[in-house]
Amino acid sequence: MSYVGSYKKIRDRPFRVYCATAIATGYMAYSHFKNNKVEMKEVIQAKDYMAAPITPLHELEKNQNDMKAQMELLIMRIQAEFCRALEKEEDEAWDDDKTPHEYDFENDAFIISPDAKFKVDRWTRPTGGGGITCVLQDGRVFEKAGVNISVVSGTLPPAAVQQMRSRGKNLQNAELPFFAAGVSAVIHPRNPMVPTIHFNYRYFEVKDKDGVQWWFGGGTDLTPYYLNEEDAQLFHTTLKNACDKHDETYYVRFKKWCDDYFHIPHRGECRGIGGIFFDDLDSPDQKSAFDFVTSCAEAVIPSYIPIVQKHKDAAYGYYERQWQLLRRGRYVEFNLMYDRGTKFGLHTPQARYESILMSLPLNAKWEYMNEPKKDSPEEQLMTVLKQPRDWVKRGETCKSQAQRAAV
Amino acid sequence: MSYVGSYKKIRDRPFRVYCATAIATGYMAYSHFKNNKVEMKEVIQAKDYMAAPITPLHELEKNQNDMKAQMELLIMRIQAEFCRALEKEEDEAWDDDKTPHEYDFENDAFIISPDAKFKVDRWTRPTGGGGITCVLQDGRVFEKAGVNISVVSGTLPPAAVQQMRSRGKNLQNAELPFFAAGVSAVIHPRNPMVPTIHFNYRYFEVKDKDGVQWWFGGGTDLTPYYLNEEDAQLFHTTLKNACDKHDETYYVRFKKWCDDYFHIPHRGECRGIGGIFFDDLDSPDQKSAFDFVTSCAEAVIPSYIPIVQKHKDAAYGYYERQWQLLRRGRYVEFNLMYDRGTKFGLHTPQARYESILMSLPLNAKWEYMNEPKKDSPEEQLMTVLKQPRDWVKRGETCKSQAQRAAV
Repeated sequence: MSYVGSYKKIRDRPFRVYCATAIATGYMAYSHFKNNKVEMKEVIQAKDYMAAPITPLHELEKNQNDMKAQMELLIMRIQAEFCRALEKEEDEAWDDDKTPHEYDFENDAFIISPDAKFKVDRWTRPTGGGGITCVLQDGRVFEKAGVNISVVSGTLPPAAVQQMRSRGKNLQNAELPFFAAGVSAVIHPRNPMVPTIHFNYRYFEVKDKDGVQWWFGGGTDLTPYYLNEEDAQLFHTTLKNACDKHDETYYVRFKKWCDDYFHIPHRGECRGIGGIFFDDLDSPDQKSAFDFVTSCAEAVIPSYIPIVQKHKDAAYGYYERQWQLLRRGRYVEFNLMYDRGTKFGLHTPQARYESILMSLPLNAKWEYMNEPKKDSPEEQLMTVLKQPRDWVKRGETCKSQAQRAAV
Repeated sequence: MSYVGSYKKIRDRPFRVYCATAIATGYMAYSHFKNNKVEMKEVIQAKDYMAAPITPLHELEKNQNDMKAQMELLIMRIQAEFCRALEKEEDEAWDDDKTPHEYDFENDAFIISPDAKFKVDRWTRPTGGGGITCVLQDGRVFEKAGVNISVVSGTLPPAAVQQMRSRGKNLQNAELPFFAAGVSAVIHPRNPMVPTIHFNYRYFEVKDKDGVQWWFGGGTDLTPYYLNEEDAQLFHTTLKNACDKHDETYYVRFKKWCDDYFHIPHRGECRGIGGIFFDDLDSPDQKSAFDFVTSCAEAVIPSYIPIVQKHKDAAYGYYERQWQLLRRGRYVEFNLMYDRGTKFGLHTPQARYESILMSLPLNAKWEYMNEPKKDSPEEQLMTVLKQPRDWVKRGETCKSQAQRAAV
């Protein structure tokens, strides 16, 4: 870790003070053209980021037409927007504890509670690149929330090259120069009525003798502890709308890919109620693929924050907490045993394991032979995890209806 | 799960009532020749086992000179002896809660507390063999204790054959008939001053075109939360004595193998303070190898129970509990990511995942960037986990002394 930034925000005010020393002087701040749909190009918003970008700002400025720079700017923005949306929820839970000296008279508002803020670690790799890890731990609304970005380059070890080849990438069997930039977040709320969310959007370049190969990957998925059908529909519909803007075949394909990917084979169940997942996306062209990824990443807040707001103060007791902890054990099983991102990350030389493993919950539990009671809300969840449903069309898939009819 | 046995014992009395229905009638009970060192052959002690053996008793009787039967009898005995030793510790913790109706007047002793007993699940696989899983969960002394045996046969899937070949076994690349019998236990005590123990002893046979290949594997290792040097010395000395009876080179080789095996590469630390570990043992001959495994398995109780007795009532607080939970998170990381037994088990067709995953702790925790305070007992443990020590010779290895001197 080479740098720890800190960020201070006046609640509900557009004015922001950004204290990262590396950024305090000399960097240009561009206007925010977020809604410029015609261009759909990321612009530099240095003052809003959680810390200084990994690539020096003057290089990002110079290379704004290069996808590497565009992706780095996108993930910086997504990280900051999502962290602030979460901090806002957390901050409200601390309202009663605020004291007059935390009041900012000039701006007529409370300063965001220090306990509601993300810890920001900016780190660099000796062999190239680095990342910004933001973690909020043991909060009132969020038991553990991690929002990472990483921008790394170097040489892919043969093991990682092999892993790519087995997925169909046509690469030589050798050490290859690569670039990877991505944002990744896992949010474990405290209240068992609020689901866990995970998302990850990434861009890869690998150079071999035939030139540069590039592709995007990513997805967003939801892991509830108690099933709420309205939440599931809101979540999936928001993702579908983001997909439909770019290709009407995407949602169906990527929803299925998500169900297949977040599957725990030894238990015969899915990690959650899915969402979208895709990899190796290199069509129709680089700009269109980037615009699609941008839409997906921008859909995270509207797909999740309303669910947090709706349930964060819901009543629950010891039993619901125990169930949540057991399900978090399953989350750990998937992440440590099957998740390609985790494996790939930990196999990367000089991997920062603390950033990779921030996805693990603060607490988890394993009970021998736990089985939900018949017709309980816990069993209702399990039914959906064992047989993924179609949430947008409202109702079950033909396949699951047929299967249930046959029982 | 095809059968649930139950077992009832009069505490501190030689008389035992064994209620498993499958065993209640017709099976012969042989005398217990445990101390017959000359013969060192397992004999049938049906009335003492936790449940009926997986192989029908009449077959075990008929094939007593076959290693498959000998190994099954050994693991049945080791399982029962270890479960009873743990139940005795747990039972004493329930003494104050006992009521007069739990008193057995005929035998002048309290009946063992129902809460201090292992839950016994005897299960069979549709394709051959099965196991007996004994779990004691949420006890006063033991938070989660699992003692499994399994006796399985069938066809090894190509993935498992491949895994063996990569370890040097010269086997054909095809589905091969196999037999495996083993005992495996993980004990997670409640008090952070009592270490976790794991042991596993197993026998394999694989048949290919050249005939039957057989080998033994196994080991015992200790995972303390707070380092107690006397405990570490007792533990390692007991294992060394068991090894030395058979081959004076074993302990040094298998201690190093253990340190190398129970290593978490991404954290650069060992899971615990080691013990012994070996695999592919097929020398000097089958009988000698079996006798060695028998000595190791019999060393578990004397290497561990005195440590439990010494510390089970030690004082501890919130802080020590949190540290224990964090270390249990590391235990989960090792078991799910690196342990060959877990991977092999979960890849076996119709694997009983509940038996394989009983090794996971009841509770575990992951904190972002937790670092022990300087010169704290937690840091003292970490020093030993990062640089394994030689416990029998008392003192550090030359290598670690030299490294420390260089700092």
